[in-house]
Amino acid sequence: MNELAHRVKDASLRLAGVGTDRKNEALAQIAEALKNSKEKIIKANREDLLRSKQENLPEPLLKRLNFDEAKIEVVIDGIFSLIHLDDPVGKTLLSTKLDDGLELYKVTCPLGVIGIIFESRPDAMVQIATLCLKSGNGALLKGGVEARETNRVLAEIIIKATEKAGIPSNWFALLETRSEVSEMLKMNQYIDLIIPRGSNEFVRYIKENSKIPVMGHSDGICHCYVAEDADVNMAIKIVSDAKTEHVAACNALETLLVHKKIAPEFLPVLKESLDNKNVELIGCSETCGLISVTAAPEEDWKTEYLDYKLSVKIVTGFDEAIEHINTYGSGHTDIIITPDKEKAMQFMEYVDSGNTFWNCSTRFSDGFRYGFGAEVGISTNKLHARGPVGLEGLVIYKYKLLGSGQIVGDYTTRSRTFKHEKMKKEFPLV
Amino acid sequence: MNELAHRVKDASLRLAGVGTDRKNEALAQIAEALKNSKEKIIKANREDLLRSKQENLPEPLLKRLNFDEAKIEVVIDGIFSLIHLDDPVGKTLLSTKLDDGLELYKVTCPLGVIGIIFESRPDAMVQIATLCLKSGNGALLKGGVEARETNRVLAEIIIKATEKAGIPSNWFALLETRSEVSEMLKMNQYIDLIIPRGSNEFVRYIKENSKIPVMGHSDGICHCYVAEDADVNMAIKIVSDAKTEHVAACNALETLLVHKKIAPEFLPVLKESLDNKNVELIGCSETCGLISVTAAPEEDWKTEYLDYKLSVKIVTGFDEAIEHINTYGSGHTDIIITPDKEKAMQFMEYVDSGNTFWNCSTRFSDGFRYGFGAEVGISTNKLHARGPVGLEGLVIYKYKLLGSGQIVGDYTTRSRTFKHEKMKKEFPLV
Repeated sequence: MNELAHRVKDASLRLAGVGTDRKNEALAQIAEALKNSKEKIIKANREDLLRSKQENLPEPLLKRLNFDEAKIEVVIDGIFSLIHLDDPVGKTLLSTKLDDGLELYKVTCPLGVIGIIFESRPDAMVQIATLCLKSGNGALLKGGVEARETNRVLAEIIIKATEKAGIPSNWFALLETRSEVSEMLKMNQYIDLIIPRGSNEFVRYIKENSKIPVMGHSDGICHCYVAEDADVNMAIKIVSDAKTEHVAACNALETLLVHKKIAPEFLPVLKESLDNKNVELIGCSETCGLISVTAAPEEDWKTEYLDYKLSVKIVTGFDEAIEHINTYGSGHTDIIITPDKEKAMQFMEYVDSGNTFWNCSTRFSDGFRYGFGAEVGISTNKLHARGPVGLEGLVIYKYKLLGSGQIVGDYTTRSRTFKHEKMKKEFPLV
Repeated sequence: MNELAHRVKDASLRLAGVGTDRKNEALAQIAEALKNSKEKIIKANREDLLRSKQENLPEPLLKRLNFDEAKIEVVIDGIFSLIHLDDPVGKTLLSTKLDDGLELYKVTCPLGVIGIIFESRPDAMVQIATLCLKSGNGALLKGGVEARETNRVLAEIIIKATEKAGIPSNWFALLETRSEVSEMLKMNQYIDLIIPRGSNEFVRYIKENSKIPVMGHSDGICHCYVAEDADVNMAIKIVSDAKTEHVAACNALETLLVHKKIAPEFLPVLKESLDNKNVELIGCSETCGLISVTAAPEEDWKTEYLDYKLSVKIVTGFDEAIEHINTYGSGHTDIIITPDKEKAMQFMEYVDSGNTFWNCSTRFSDGFRYGFGAEVGISTNKLHARGPVGLEGLVIYKYKLLGSGQIVGDYTTRSRTFKHEKMKKEFPLV
């Protein structure tokens, strides 16, 4: 395992220097191979499904494990969009002339090796592997045991297709045993970033057990604050979408905060609307006084239901709403409904979350909807990358300084002084 | 302690919304107050020096603890440069029209609360506190016990001056006991980033004992590769500067890699030059065959001497040099001496370090020399910020979405489609 990770690290250093055309060619080869191997993939996936059913894998996991022709098509389409996205590597972020013949460049480069651990979904595996490839990163993947046959076939396709396109071999490796995960979490000399995909508990476990930086979110406790001057119809429409459009999503609404002045008018209409969608409401004592709902203990403000359930709290005003969100929220996505622009600007300023919206649904918090083409996941970290993370989150930069014999001693003794002129120049390629 | 950190967090959320003018006014007030309190500061510092001498604090630490008029002047000058730097907060990084009346902005914002732990130097305390202020971050500082009187006076000055300028109170707090450090390292609900300043052992200890992200470097094992075609005079000049200009600096040269073809010509001249500067050379067995030096065991390739000592290894070529650096280096700063541009470009590409240079000294790896004005430190992390870190490393971004009632359901059912038009528009202020 140690040796395997070492090989992926070595290959990743060579992959960092591979040009855009070759990477795109490799992506096209993967798409082509997936198209040609549909039957083989589906056959392997059927084996996984059958075995997992016998092992009583829960229904939602079986659904995620399923990788049929339609899903393969979606993955192939995704690869073609990825080919059309800009290469995030090799971009010059800054160029400064420190002195004559001494030029500093800040240039984007891959992170190195990404360790990806995911539960059942085989489509996530292809998606993240191709994102790693386009961003020039080595990938060490560990899939769920339930998907082992599908993953083996997919890994073989990816490895063969990229070798054919001239990508350094060993850039990609598949791990198969669970014990390898705990080993992986300790390999900070070879792995630069861990991306876990799966349930909240799973992501939380990974975050708590790794010395390597982890990107992702373990909770999505999203809030909507309905201000005293909100348009009731707009608020009903947005809350209903945010709660019910896809209840199991991390960007679904979990807690509604309502200004006390608008609550008597708003809450009965809301209840009627959400009753029609089978959403269970639970609320603070004041909410219980206005509509017939179950009382919410404090625990509910910290709960991500991922279900047809919504907690409601009446607040005395803007400050209490912000305070509540910053105390109980998870830094994912929080929104305000108000016609007042100044209030909205303050809300978006003071709410300490990766995504803060005005007069639209929490469900827009998503890489595809943001126009990023592809996403690795949504980060609630505050360092490096926040919110939906696309290719840009998989690169960092390095400083390159081109000199002609300069030494620092000349500047310390003041026989030379720095010029520090901004250049707006691209890093010179050979 | 928990309550204190909570108060700093609350204040930091308000500080995030404070404008550039007010922050600059507060910085000017700090500079003014430092100027007016020189005598008081120097008196407190004398007490610290006297007590520390009696407690037998080692000489280098006493030197760092010393905060005299000249050092106060340097700190005041630094504050004025900081005032003139761009505010890193509120910059629009991306703006996209998702649809009519639905605009997405990616806007920079402060990280939140920075926990700073430093050993003896009181000037580092003022420097980092003012960097936090300019970047809109709350600051929780823990200084060394040896500097307690000086730090108390400085903290009082910072707190009073910023209150006078209308900065939210409690944005800054000073911790005084050692036990508070271990508490601090666990407070990931209030602290967003830890910056340790001090010896390598100290930084390593902090990195290994915190759940909060840590920014900084624990090692600076910098390399110079002298290629077969290098100009010998240039190589001697650069190596001498990189090794001896300031031996205790993290960007000082520690290992020299020499191509075997140039070694017989280069090493004797190098030895003579470094002998004059009292640099002890140790080397691989082949080096020992060419010049009279002590043999280096493998441990030396992993050692940061921070002293007049340099390890030398003869390599068979470019690939071995890169392999050696990526194996034994610390990702800090590595340089190549060669007239060959293509080789230099490859070196800078394949060496996995934050700073890779061509034909100039490792000592240029520094925020002031890069023209950043001020620096928090040099990061060998690969996420978020790498190399010398200025104000930009203390901010992140959030996505702000301005809508007019949009729901995702309309896009899922395809009654509306995304436009995803790039706007190049600044985030609209009120």
